[in-house]
Amino acid sequence: MKHYFLDKIEYPKDLKHLTIKELISLSKELRDKTIDVVSKTGGHLGAGLGVIELTIALHYIFNTPKDKLIWDVGHQSYPHKIITGRKKQIESIRQGGGLYGFVKRSESEYDTFSTAHSSTSISAGLGIQIAKQIKDENNNDSVICVIGDGALSAGMAYEALNNAGAMNKRLIVILNDNDMSIDRPVGAMSSYLSKLLSSRSYSNIRSVIKKVSNRFPKTFAKMLYRAEEYSKGFISGGTLFEELGFFYLGPIDGHNLNHLVPVLQNIKLSKIDKPIFLHIITKKGKGYKPAEESQDKFHGVNKFDVVTGSPISKSNSKSYSKIFGETLAEEAKKDEKIVAVTAAMASGTGLDIFSKLHPKRCFDVGIAEQHAVTMSAGMATEGLKPFVAIYSTFLQRAYDQIIHDVAIQKLPVRFAIDRAGQVGADGATHAGSFDIAYLSCLPNFIIMAAGDENDLIRMIKTSIQIDDRPSSFRFPRGSGSGVQDGEKNEPIEIGKGRILKQGNTIALINLGARLGSCLEAYDNLSRKGFNITLIDARFAKPLDTDLLNMALDNHEFILTIEEGSIGGFSSLVLDYIHNKRNKPLKSKVQNIIFPDRFINHDLPENQYKEIGMDSQSIEKKILSLIANKEIDLKNINTI
Amino acid sequence: MKHYFLDKIEYPKDLKHLTIKELISLSKELRDKTIDVVSKTGGHLGAGLGVIELTIALHYIFNTPKDKLIWDVGHQSYPHKIITGRKKQIESIRQGGGLYGFVKRSESEYDTFSTAHSSTSISAGLGIQIAKQIKDENNNDSVICVIGDGALSAGMAYEALNNAGAMNKRLIVILNDNDMSIDRPVGAMSSYLSKLLSSRSYSNIRSVIKKVSNRFPKTFAKMLYRAEEYSKGFISGGTLFEELGFFYLGPIDGHNLNHLVPVLQNIKLSKIDKPIFLHIITKKGKGYKPAEESQDKFHGVNKFDVVTGSPISKSNSKSYSKIFGETLAEEAKKDEKIVAVTAAMASGTGLDIFSKLHPKRCFDVGIAEQHAVTMSAGMATEGLKPFVAIYSTFLQRAYDQIIHDVAIQKLPVRFAIDRAGQVGADGATHAGSFDIAYLSCLPNFIIMAAGDENDLIRMIKTSIQIDDRPSSFRFPRGSGSGVQDGEKNEPIEIGKGRILKQGNTIALINLGARLGSCLEAYDNLSRKGFNITLIDARFAKPLDTDLLNMALDNHEFILTIEEGSIGGFSSLVLDYIHNKRNKPLKSKVQNIIFPDRFINHDLPENQYKEIGMDSQSIEKKILSLIANKEIDLKNINTI
Repeated sequence: MKHYFLDKIEYPKDLKHLTIKELISLSKELRDKTIDVVSKTGGHLGAGLGVIELTIALHYIFNTPKDKLIWDVGHQSYPHKIITGRKKQIESIRQGGGLYGFVKRSESEYDTFSTAHSSTSISAGLGIQIAKQIKDENNNDSVICVIGDGALSAGMAYEALNNAGAMNKRLIVILNDNDMSIDRPVGAMSSYLSKLLSSRSYSNIRSVIKKVSNRFPKTFAKMLYRAEEYSKGFISGGTLFEELGFFYLGPIDGHNLNHLVPVLQNIKLSKIDKPIFLHIITKKGKGYKPAEESQDKFHGVNKFDVVTGSPISKSNSKSYSKIFGETLAEEAKKDEKIVAVTAAMASGTGLDIFSKLHPKRCFDVGIAEQHAVTMSAGMATEGLKPFVAIYSTFLQRAYDQIIHDVAIQKLPVRFAIDRAGQVGADGATHAGSFDIAYLSCLPNFIIMAAGDENDLIRMIKTSIQIDDRPSSFRFPRGSGSGVQDGEKNEPIEIGKGRILKQGNTIALINLGARLGSCLEAYDNLSRKGFNITLIDARFAKPLDTDLLNMALDNHEFILTIEEGSIGGFSSLVLDYIHNKRNKPLKSKVQNIIFPDRFINHDLPENQYKEIGMDSQSIEKKILSLIANKEIDLKNINTI
Repeated sequence: MKHYFLDKIEYPKDLKHLTIKELISLSKELRDKTIDVVSKTGGHLGAGLGVIELTIALHYIFNTPKDKLIWDVGHQSYPHKIITGRKKQIESIRQGGGLYGFVKRSESEYDTFSTAHSSTSISAGLGIQIAKQIKDENNNDSVICVIGDGALSAGMAYEALNNAGAMNKRLIVILNDNDMSIDRPVGAMSSYLSKLLSSRSYSNIRSVIKKVSNRFPKTFAKMLYRAEEYSKGFISGGTLFEELGFFYLGPIDGHNLNHLVPVLQNIKLSKIDKPIFLHIITKKGKGYKPAEESQDKFHGVNKFDVVTGSPISKSNSKSYSKIFGETLAEEAKKDEKIVAVTAAMASGTGLDIFSKLHPKRCFDVGIAEQHAVTMSAGMATEGLKPFVAIYSTFLQRAYDQIIHDVAIQKLPVRFAIDRAGQVGADGATHAGSFDIAYLSCLPNFIIMAAGDENDLIRMIKTSIQIDDRPSSFRFPRGSGSGVQDGEKNEPIEIGKGRILKQGNTIALINLGARLGSCLEAYDNLSRKGFNITLIDARFAKPLDTDLLNMALDNHEFILTIEEGSIGGFSSLVLDYIHNKRNKPLKSKVQNIIFPDRFINHDLPENQYKEIGMDSQSIEKKILSLIANKEIDLKNINTI
């Protein structure tokens, strides 16, 4: 596709000579380009389309990368990447070896601060602004944080606003208000923003510009400023942000470059010595009908047909998330005490299904994992059975609440930990690598990991029954081999694993969703005449010590495997062997865990291959154990 | 001491027949009792004295424990404990086997929800309120959360307000505004509250009562309510909380029972179908001159003389925290890039010392650990050298930020982790048990633990030099054997431990502040003729594998010890042995770590004895290894 303006733009410097009219033409091209790219690669679309004009205006007015631009979450950064030197690579986005789907410092000097989890931008921006002034008191570089309204529900964003508002630093916060995070934003802040908009519509743009203008003689500007201050409630609204110490401007139309450019220009030149809060209104998915009309505005999509907006391929198998949502909803019909809590991820976690059946027992608290966990702890004190469904990577946000409000009080909060293990295209920032480690060090917890879909169902039922202490079960992104019909899927006895294959010499002990690869490795080894024992541990905590003893007593090699870092199942097993078992160790014990580095985005199968956790690697590992140790092959061959 | 009213009060029911005048007399007695108790036990005083009247009024009006009362943080709960059945045990508070110094569910049915870390109360209260209504739609029990203004700086509190404000639940939040958390509260919210108060002084109490009164005919009440709504800015202020969906009342004088009682009575009877925010003004340390006049209002104190307020005993040795503050302040004279960040703990972490010397390079962000860490990450991107000083237990609040904003970006943020290990009287909620585990699973981190004061100084200097990745160093509460003079205290080579005693047969490998006990055990064993090797590992990550190999190659037993849970140093050592060393394991390896349960409050020396980590237990453990394994004693005796 030929683009008259865009083709000439590699870096923001190439924008600078354009007129606003030309910028408007460019925005059309950049929008087309973004749609075209995501239709081929899949990824985040709606968010990027919502900030096309803002992206252009920011790079047009500000002197990036010297002025620092921080995109909160970063999933809206595709257009930013296209005009900051990455146009040629943009079609590699989210693919192995390609560009990252979020903002990444190591990718470009225009990526000031890596973002991917929500609501970090104001904290980072304030740190950068402070640092600039410590290094040089006369530094006048701008620091601009662009944050969505959904991200404002996170406590972290408030902590940063609260701190920034009390400092006289010239931080620029742009609220990109599209009334639409992944699921619809919830909470009082969101209602407040809607009210702000509906009661006033857009601000008169001249009054906004006047408010920040420094073109008047200084004393006059001061007078004007003071007058505006007094009448703030009437002219601009936004008192809540003014109460928090910000200079509030807006709301203005975030798709109108004739408004955006002069307002940003004036903000840049203004001498206001406190943080500025510019409120712009945008439309997620703007300019692409299928996105605008879809319920989630094409938040995250697979490859699609540009004309129709229909996905080009669609997986047929049911995801673990969906199985979770369906199963819990079904169980909740029988047990009125079951409630479900999500932090702005109702559809991602499958709780949208639960919510339809049990609307009064499903709570979306917004991007507020800390609150979600402690609220659930409160519910548990009243005898309810709360299920908190949060991705492994986001549950990190609530670690203190898990320890302080759940584990120490031994309250039966159930943690449904989705996206455990490698997650593919979302990469290191979203990988579920640490939950087994950060939970298994906590007293009182029961920790499970589903090896397959049937076990997920059984673990849900198990945790319904665990009513005297916290429990968790983890499961991977996407789908596995599918639910096996004809199984009863009864609850599992606490702390009991299962022997899937009884062999000899080598025992492979799996925890979690590498089970499929382990079974594959088993089959291949079988064909080669090696019959190993294959165990699915199911529980990281409590350990199935009977099973472990069986393995240790009857095998020369023990190999554990789990989709997680050091400190998890492997550490619990080694601790048992060295500190609790009270028997000399006669077997050789090794562990397959995630390596001590962050894994780049790629297809999950490639990621697992890279780190030696696919079936071939497992097989190879076992064969090397056999070869190195000169095991009596006659023994292992006799089945 | 005889107390005319208090002596007759064991439970809240004993209050109910008193007149307000009698309640006022009671409040004097309860205040005296609280001062008397804390003078003997030490503990938190100022906070309790600030809520004497509120405590009495709440239990007088509400039907506790059926109505649920949640004290945020819980350090203000001593008076509450005295009038809820624990008067006789109150002098055991914070002592081994005695009452807990915070709110603890297992202690009393009046302790609705355990609190100790800040800002959890509104989340818990909302969960409880929701649960009550799910169980019984007509439930009219009240749920009351009492939260301080300092606690409002935490994102978690905002997440809860944001969620509660959007739900039509009758939650009662009482803001106990004393403009004084441990250190002075900071941030825009705090300024906002001061402004609220100064601009209006106390509300006319009749107008407050009218606002919630339900004594009028319903339609009239509705009219009144609407009229008040329109004029809210003029009558009651608090627009920020009203914007967040709360029904705001106040501010009123929290020490005036003639105001508190009728206002609470009216709130209880009101039919307002949204959350209520009652703003009361109190004085920390109220009614005890030495407390009122002290800078920290007797926040946490040792035993003291009631008449003078002077502490009865005072430790002479310099705390680790103070050494940290002094050393960093000294180093910052030479290195302008050093900055320090604290989350409302300037004096607790020793950063008050740093702040005096470098006020422009010290940042107290309020109770906002998440923001503190990410702001520091932002500073690091600009080449500063940020030191984040946070207690181990509170750093849990920033776990996601440590992973997502620091470790993945590999930014050189330095974590000074105070209060590592058991912390004595503050008990399980404040123990620093998990930091080695939750940090050592993260790629890119360098993790140190100080064995003594000199090593703390060296580790501070070491981390100043670590400028290409995150680093941390942990140290315990209180003081150790003191700084040894005449040492150069140079930076330590990364990943290098030290051999303190070269012996044989048994190698004891220490990480952190159990070093003193290890040395004691060594001496005792020496006297008995056993010469063990004693190693101080210094680094959990990277492991000193040379030292480990030396230990493994030359000893029959390896025993590691650290002040932390499973998943930390012990797991890294076992991982090295099994998965990286590539040599058959010929030694027996065991680990002394925290047990898999939460440890109750007691003197630290008792806690360490209980869990087998004092010098005697270490000695005994080593002797039992020797006895059990029938080591050739001749060998171990030859030195």
